[in-house]
Amino acid sequence: MGKKIVAALFVAFIIVLPSFSQPYHQYIDPFIGSEGEGHIFIGPSVPFGMVKPGPDNNKYSNSGYVSDSLVPIFGFSQIHVSGTGGGAKYGNISLMPYTGQFDMYDEGSIFCDERAETSYYGVKLKKWNIDVELTTTAKASFHRYVFSLGKKGVKVDAGAFLDEGNLPDSREAQHLVGSEIEIVSDYAVRGYNRVRGGWNNGTAYTVYFYAEFDQPFESFGTWKGNDVFKSVESQADTGEKTGAYMSFGENSSDTVQVKIGISFLSSLKAKQNLESEISHWNFDRVLNEGQNLWEEMISRIEIDESATYEQKVMFYTGLYHTMLMPVDRTGENPLWLSPKPYYDDFYALWDTYRTSHPLLTLITPSRQADIVNCLIDIYKFEGYMPDARSGNYNGRTQGGSNADVLIADAFVKGLPGVNYGTGLHAMLKNANIPPGGNEEKEGRGGLTDYNSLGYVSTRFVRAGNRTLEYALNDYCIAAVAKGLGRNGEYRRFLKQSDNWKNLWRDIEHEGSRGFIMPKDAAGNWVDSIQCDRKDGRVSYVQYDPLAQEWPICVCWWCGFFYEGTSWEYSLFVPHDVPGLIDQCGGSNAFQKRLDTFFENSYYNVANEPSFLSPCLYHWIGRPELSSKRVHQIIDDNYNISRSGIPGNDDSGSMSSWLAFHMMGFYPNAGHSYYLLNTPYFKETVIHQENGNDFIIRAENLSENNCYIQSAILNGKSYNKAWIEHNNIVAGGELIFIMGSKPSSWGHEIMPPQDIK
Amino acid sequence: MGKKIVAALFVAFIIVLPSFSQPYHQYIDPFIGSEGEGHIFIGPSVPFGMVKPGPDNNKYSNSGYVSDSLVPIFGFSQIHVSGTGGGAKYGNISLMPYTGQFDMYDEGSIFCDERAETSYYGVKLKKWNIDVELTTTAKASFHRYVFSLGKKGVKVDAGAFLDEGNLPDSREAQHLVGSEIEIVSDYAVRGYNRVRGGWNNGTAYTVYFYAEFDQPFESFGTWKGNDVFKSVESQADTGEKTGAYMSFGENSSDTVQVKIGISFLSSLKAKQNLESEISHWNFDRVLNEGQNLWEEMISRIEIDESATYEQKVMFYTGLYHTMLMPVDRTGENPLWLSPKPYYDDFYALWDTYRTSHPLLTLITPSRQADIVNCLIDIYKFEGYMPDARSGNYNGRTQGGSNADVLIADAFVKGLPGVNYGTGLHAMLKNANIPPGGNEEKEGRGGLTDYNSLGYVSTRFVRAGNRTLEYALNDYCIAAVAKGLGRNGEYRRFLKQSDNWKNLWRDIEHEGSRGFIMPKDAAGNWVDSIQCDRKDGRVSYVQYDPLAQEWPICVCWWCGFFYEGTSWEYSLFVPHDVPGLIDQCGGSNAFQKRLDTFFENSYYNVANEPSFLSPCLYHWIGRPELSSKRVHQIIDDNYNISRSGIPGNDDSGSMSSWLAFHMMGFYPNAGHSYYLLNTPYFKETVIHQENGNDFIIRAENLSENNCYIQSAILNGKSYNKAWIEHNNIVAGGELIFIMGSKPSSWGHEIMPPQDIK
Repeated sequence: MGKKIVAALFVAFIIVLPSFSQPYHQYIDPFIGSEGEGHIFIGPSVPFGMVKPGPDNNKYSNSGYVSDSLVPIFGFSQIHVSGTGGGAKYGNISLMPYTGQFDMYDEGSIFCDERAETSYYGVKLKKWNIDVELTTTAKASFHRYVFSLGKKGVKVDAGAFLDEGNLPDSREAQHLVGSEIEIVSDYAVRGYNRVRGGWNNGTAYTVYFYAEFDQPFESFGTWKGNDVFKSVESQADTGEKTGAYMSFGENSSDTVQVKIGISFLSSLKAKQNLESEISHWNFDRVLNEGQNLWEEMISRIEIDESATYEQKVMFYTGLYHTMLMPVDRTGENPLWLSPKPYYDDFYALWDTYRTSHPLLTLITPSRQADIVNCLIDIYKFEGYMPDARSGNYNGRTQGGSNADVLIADAFVKGLPGVNYGTGLHAMLKNANIPPGGNEEKEGRGGLTDYNSLGYVSTRFVRAGNRTLEYALNDYCIAAVAKGLGRNGEYRRFLKQSDNWKNLWRDIEHEGSRGFIMPKDAAGNWVDSIQCDRKDGRVSYVQYDPLAQEWPICVCWWCGFFYEGTSWEYSLFVPHDVPGLIDQCGGSNAFQKRLDTFFENSYYNVANEPSFLSPCLYHWIGRPELSSKRVHQIIDDNYNISRSGIPGNDDSGSMSSWLAFHMMGFYPNAGHSYYLLNTPYFKETVIHQENGNDFIIRAENLSENNCYIQSAILNGKSYNKAWIEHNNIVAGGELIFIMGSKPSSWGHEIMPPQDIK
Repeated sequence: MGKKIVAALFVAFIIVLPSFSQPYHQYIDPFIGSEGEGHIFIGPSVPFGMVKPGPDNNKYSNSGYVSDSLVPIFGFSQIHVSGTGGGAKYGNISLMPYTGQFDMYDEGSIFCDERAETSYYGVKLKKWNIDVELTTTAKASFHRYVFSLGKKGVKVDAGAFLDEGNLPDSREAQHLVGSEIEIVSDYAVRGYNRVRGGWNNGTAYTVYFYAEFDQPFESFGTWKGNDVFKSVESQADTGEKTGAYMSFGENSSDTVQVKIGISFLSSLKAKQNLESEISHWNFDRVLNEGQNLWEEMISRIEIDESATYEQKVMFYTGLYHTMLMPVDRTGENPLWLSPKPYYDDFYALWDTYRTSHPLLTLITPSRQADIVNCLIDIYKFEGYMPDARSGNYNGRTQGGSNADVLIADAFVKGLPGVNYGTGLHAMLKNANIPPGGNEEKEGRGGLTDYNSLGYVSTRFVRAGNRTLEYALNDYCIAAVAKGLGRNGEYRRFLKQSDNWKNLWRDIEHEGSRGFIMPKDAAGNWVDSIQCDRKDGRVSYVQYDPLAQEWPICVCWWCGFFYEGTSWEYSLFVPHDVPGLIDQCGGSNAFQKRLDTFFENSYYNVANEPSFLSPCLYHWIGRPELSSKRVHQIIDDNYNISRSGIPGNDDSGSMSSWLAFHMMGFYPNAGHSYYLLNTPYFKETVIHQENGNDFIIRAENLSENNCYIQSAILNGKSYNKAWIEHNNIVAGGELIFIMGSKPSSWGHEIMPPQDIK
């Protein structure tokens, strides 16, 4: 009897206790992706926050950070990006606490006790036994230093930045343009760092700051170049690196706090930002406010309590990464005034158009509309929407003009508040006017070929993926044109969306027939390219569907494809998969191709071009094979370790890809539907801005019960392996009935071709 | 006996007295060109000076000024350009003294007692009886205000600028981006004005200032937008106009002086510029230093004492105008660091390549080399040399890529210190890579046509003058390529320099046969263009050699020619006049064409395209007819009145054209020779940087004796109507023997074709 009562009470306890899941931000692990290829930024940020203070211990790391406590941290700078590749950007306004005499050449300190959570980073600098903690608001950061014995000092380096080039005009590196520092009082210092270059070879951007300490410093000095000037209050900008150091007296507290306002307009504006965002000295209050902002965002999607800890961490960290960038710099645009919002650090749309922006469209459609309107505004003021942008400068464009996809995706999903009329103008600018120069900044390179020949020929680099991506971009123009009643453009661009076929060569490789291959301007297939001239010989690389002539024969950006092979890219026709299947010789041949692709590891998990490919089985009526591929890829490559992201996160792209698949549905950007797959969670609830909830349930879900037997949408039987955005927006419930054997669910009806 | 002694003494007195001519800067009249079309800036400047403080009384005037004392002056701003057309630029950091209460909406004051001389401007503001005087150094201006009775005030407007657009994105207008002001102490105020747009639709530039008064102000206020804040020390940049006003107490002096340091980097740098350039409060000392700088430059060319006062004023004011722009902003480049000099306000090379830069090559070859190296540096850091540039932004390109001509001109004249190797790369960039976008910023618009068809077709605007100017630019590339031993390029571009013939249509007009006419991309001549659609009818404009379809049918920049007709442009083949004469049907037909051109007033004195045309008679062996035309044009159109310049001075172009012709020799930019004509002066001495003097004498010159009978060069008979740059550089003496009848001097030997 006693045992029964205890058991009953126990059961009762479990039933009535509120969910233990919240807050969800406890599941965010900023360290995921900080090792390996992820290049994740580990410091604190608010959602889409302009200021991202974090530890720098490697000048050539894209995040400024390498996960090795024996590599000394040399500073905590205020601006970073997350998940990028290529040359690094930012790393400006670097603060460093130290003990003892100021030493300009001090290399920093190895560290321990590193801890990071939502809106918080902490670490101990072993050299001086100083504990550093960071938190932040959108435009101001808050540092807390707890010193041990010795003379307390803080260095404010207005000259530092990441990835400084050796040569004055080395590509992708950052280069100094100017620097200035000014002691304002015995509490405050202001100044700026002006830098150009970086990954997008951008024109100069300036990061202004206004830093305020919570106690007066006793003495200070400033430096310019290699010269240090004790008690000299300012160093004007004469093109050299400047900075200041301040020492605190014996009677000062062991804990020194400093708040740093940041601006891209001026240091007075940085001061104003600081005063309006952090008007007090309560570190924990700022930390909590940041966590609340994150909680408000990520709790819009709730997963069921029974998900494993690892799943929760993967999912919520995935959402977190998706909302680090682009950054909201409204009111901080040094280039023009506009009533529209201003965002920067699109890094890059080539990556994020596929999953990040579709995910934002669900979580925060109002902000996604702001982002799209910002892209259109950039077209208005500068002439072209970006495909990437950082430091207030467009660039670089790796393939297509993918802002087109964001506009079309918003349009077909009925996202309100977007200026679609001007948006179409912006898309047409991409499609009609060549951008010129090296054609890396914006617009479509090789456009003169594409518009006259119907493909980009080998007289332009990246001719392969450009042709494919322009075909998708043109489909997007057709979709918007059709919706706006512009039939001439609809017909023209629908036709152009077939242009990928102009590069389809009838060759066989590894049992599959037909691949995207290079063609010259006269219409002849190109079989090989020159590679090297050595020892009097000229070597050639044969073009086959696995050829990768970059970066060995030609530069990274100079091959026929960008960061991929023909095996990968020949699966890239998201707007016409049925047409692709035809070209491949029908469903059976296509399935064989897909199987070969995955089994021979031609699939590259670490990059974006093949993001949709695991789901291509849907179009041959075999959604369960898609689910199988997806789960295999995730189980093999994603986890919660520091190297738990298999490639550059690219501003949250890999993370949002993961988050969608864990929920069990996946977008095809530019189209209004989502493909359905086996979820990871028994239940997912999407709380939308319009007040509607959409619930996905997977009944009987288990490791064995991984096959969808049937589905019920809002109480009715549902046998399509895809749903419409409208289904989600309207609210409702989708239930998968899971089982242990493959079924014929979803075999009959293919995803729609919206606009043909 | 008494009278004889007096006469002898008088003669002795005249003989031994030194020349009364100097200083030459007394002949500079800043008012010439301030009325009519000249658009001249009348305030003080040092040679090539970055800071040009001056009176503003019209926001839409290119110089900020209209010569009408009943139009109130509303401020004295620190940055201006001289002689430009189209939308205005600059007019930033505007100071205004006033008496009584500060009134934000005060419209300024009508004026009188206006006086301007070299390095000085003075005027009385009638409303308050305040006398304003301005002088300047390169980077700082010096204002002196003498007040009458009443409370003395000074307004510092950090939000003002010229030609503000009504709509946020109106073309050619300037638009606010930001503004900030900060009271530093009771002596000083700092801040900035950030603006974009203007004639070249440029990206944002920022003018920073640091202003210091010679006595403390008693009270102050600042404003932002429409709100005024008494005693509030600063207004941070939130995208609104800001400013400050300061009032001086009763015990303060009636004379208030203020020095304003300017920078394009920061206000601390502006302060540093101020401290290093004007470390004292002696207005007259700064004025004298400025005048000395001008004297040092213009006295390098000395004309004979017997020239008329009017001639002296025209000539030295001409030299003065030539050296106002471009401006030396070395150390003030907010975009990159470089050991090379940095110049801005090339406004525009399309105008100045013809005469201004050849004149600088004679007067100050070291600076000309700096300018050319700067253009090449801009190519290095931004991708293209400018054809025009202001506000740190290239643009706009009216026709060809004329930095090419500066490089070739320097090369064939053996100008030392120029990086010709990289210069050739920069020229090849223009010739090979289309600039994209609207093709107005830099590079060659329509290049894809020009390089595939051999001409720019009617699918591009300005196809006519672009084709002609590219042909000249290509000749220039050939000249440099040949000199550097690059024979492939030499041959290619020499051939392309004939491309103008591809638009030569065999039609007759007004007795002349053959004109540059529009052709479509299929190779068909175009006879008419659509003009208007009105009342159900479509109207057309027939293309004939006088047609001017802009700006009535199409926009100013959208016609077949830019700012000219076919009659004008069909004479524009500076690199192959013999070839042009052939196309025209030989010498007799060409003379008839020229006579018709001038007698029917098809010649436009007010613009640059026909600059060389009056001298084309040289190529049919009739140099005296060139001289006759030149003198007629000058006598009819140039004088020392306020409207004494017949067209926009365009950064000194009209002025340098005049100066050359008054000396009696005239350049053909891109070639090493000068054409010889009847001078205005009996003697001209050019003192060169290399220490050599070159003297031109015209013996027996008078109004009747205007024909060159013969010439002697360095003691030997000289019968060519042109000389080489080398003749000048080596020093020497050229004597014209003048007479009252035409002779056959110069009829035999034509100017050379350097590189064929």
